[in-house]
Amino acid sequence: MTLPKIGITLGDPGGVGPEVVLKAFASIHSLPKAHYILFGSNDVLKKEQEILNLDFDLPSLASIKDAYQQHPCLYEVDSPLNSEVKGRPSKKNGQASFRYFDTAVKEAQAGNLQGVVTAPVSKHSWNLAGIHWAGHTDFLSHLFPEAIMFFWSEELKIALYTHHLPLREALERVKEGPLLEFFQILQKELKNMPLPDYELFMAGLNPHAGEEGLMGSEEGDEILPAIKTAKKIGIPISGPYPPDTVFRKALNHPDKIVIALYHDQGLIPFKILAFEKGINVTLGLPFVRTSPCHGTAFDIAGKGVADPESMIGAIELAHRLASALS
Amino acid sequence: MTLPKIGITLGDPGGVGPEVVLKAFASIHSLPKAHYILFGSNDVLKKEQEILNLDFDLPSLASIKDAYQQHPCLYEVDSPLNSEVKGRPSKKNGQASFRYFDTAVKEAQAGNLQGVVTAPVSKHSWNLAGIHWAGHTDFLSHLFPEAIMFFWSEELKIALYTHHLPLREALERVKEGPLLEFFQILQKELKNMPLPDYELFMAGLNPHAGEEGLMGSEEGDEILPAIKTAKKIGIPISGPYPPDTVFRKALNHPDKIVIALYHDQGLIPFKILAFEKGINVTLGLPFVRTSPCHGTAFDIAGKGVADPESMIGAIELAHRLASALS
Repeated sequence: MTLPKIGITLGDPGGVGPEVVLKAFASIHSLPKAHYILFGSNDVLKKEQEILNLDFDLPSLASIKDAYQQHPCLYEVDSPLNSEVKGRPSKKNGQASFRYFDTAVKEAQAGNLQGVVTAPVSKHSWNLAGIHWAGHTDFLSHLFPEAIMFFWSEELKIALYTHHLPLREALERVKEGPLLEFFQILQKELKNMPLPDYELFMAGLNPHAGEEGLMGSEEGDEILPAIKTAKKIGIPISGPYPPDTVFRKALNHPDKIVIALYHDQGLIPFKILAFEKGINVTLGLPFVRTSPCHGTAFDIAGKGVADPESMIGAIELAHRLASALS
Repeated sequence: MTLPKIGITLGDPGGVGPEVVLKAFASIHSLPKAHYILFGSNDVLKKEQEILNLDFDLPSLASIKDAYQQHPCLYEVDSPLNSEVKGRPSKKNGQASFRYFDTAVKEAQAGNLQGVVTAPVSKHSWNLAGIHWAGHTDFLSHLFPEAIMFFWSEELKIALYTHHLPLREALERVKEGPLLEFFQILQKELKNMPLPDYELFMAGLNPHAGEEGLMGSEEGDEILPAIKTAKKIGIPISGPYPPDTVFRKALNHPDKIVIALYHDQGLIPFKILAFEKGINVTLGLPFVRTSPCHGTAFDIAGKGVADPESMIGAIELAHRLASALS
């Protein structure tokens, strides 16, 4: 069996990304067997290792193909960084974190990586650097129009129909045709996931899922017709359910997936129920991509107190999904 | 000290309302001292007592003024009911439950009750009976335009800026002037609550609270200006915060109150975090009104398995608020 090659990007050097990555690798022997390749800057890693008092060798690679088995290596990414600003957004950190990510994605597109795990970036740093994507998933959605933002935990799984859009625009997207198309892409993607008996619960848009038209018409006009057609073509879906009870319905059923219509409909319950252990997964790519759910956490960056649990979970899930794919 | 008079409406006779009310009164001695008056039908109560095998005396009152101390009485409400349909919506149950409620509200308006606790009604039964209010709070909002839907638990407290509206309409209400007016009414109402050091956290509307205009403009154009003015006039408010983190920020801080902009923004987290113990409170009325958070639960009605915890909580909170008012 060939071990998967998994790239890990360091994220914004001013945030907790380098810390949680290094902490994850401090216990490398508890991680599943793979070739792990960090995409980052040696200077950033050296400084972070000093802060954390973590002394382990991180050999540099000239090519991804040379990656060692079960010993993390560094793929040095050319970046403008010689000293990073810690604890706040900065232009140089924005440029650097984008290059780490972009380089790893290119290697994955070329087939040199089976998975990419991304440490958190700062949208503000990206903005300062003139990079106007709203985040990793936004960038990936432009490269791969079928990309789906998916949140994974043992307790709860959520697929987002729309994500980084103003709520007003998200509402305009609640249309039968695009909904059906989304269900079909999701079904195709879930075939590759270790979820043989999955079931989809569709959330409504309005209070009480519109209460049979008394409080909104999208459920009857758009959502229900899309669900009916989806069922006919064999997609295991039901709903629309009242948004304030559908998440409890799926909770602690590992094979049930809630489809949320907009960012906060899915992220409010997910962050409450699975904040520490939640993993962000992008479906619809030709490779696996996961990341922890937390952000750069500038307020605690450089203090050595960040919890690597979500990053470790993201690495383990990337390994599991990459193995299921290969 | 005069004990408060608290009216309790039986709710839809086909749902779990009569059951949770009777179960609450089965342990009357653990409830705070008050005059408790049930608004309902003797026939319904008799049948429910048989199902539950709960045999206690429930004397009928000719007038609220005759209510006994610490011994629940029945104020028989004229209704079309001689036999109820259990476990599903019905026209007669809709008529009856509306009359119980309407009668109790009239007594409270006349100053004969300090508090009203309502067991769940069915909007479908109301509809069948030609009553087109979306629920108790909707009816009260028409009688008292300053009514505010508020959710109370020890873990989390939430005030809803809008409630039973299609999401599309709720969005149109996100305007500076009406928001400021809401903050002022809320401040006035909270003065009467046992929350001396309360603080308000305003939720944003868009993902990440608009991320400084990158994902929606309502935060900058409408919400922030209203907050700024509110602060100037002494209202302890801050925000707008990202909707997917603000509830965690308030969680387990009994004096922090989140203002949610629309029904599901508030109810999704509240039902996850405080489903069993949550209490629905209507502020902005000349009397106290509380109710359990659950609905008629037609699927388990008449089976004797309904949990009275939320109803007991609603009675205790009504007592606490009525005592703070008097």
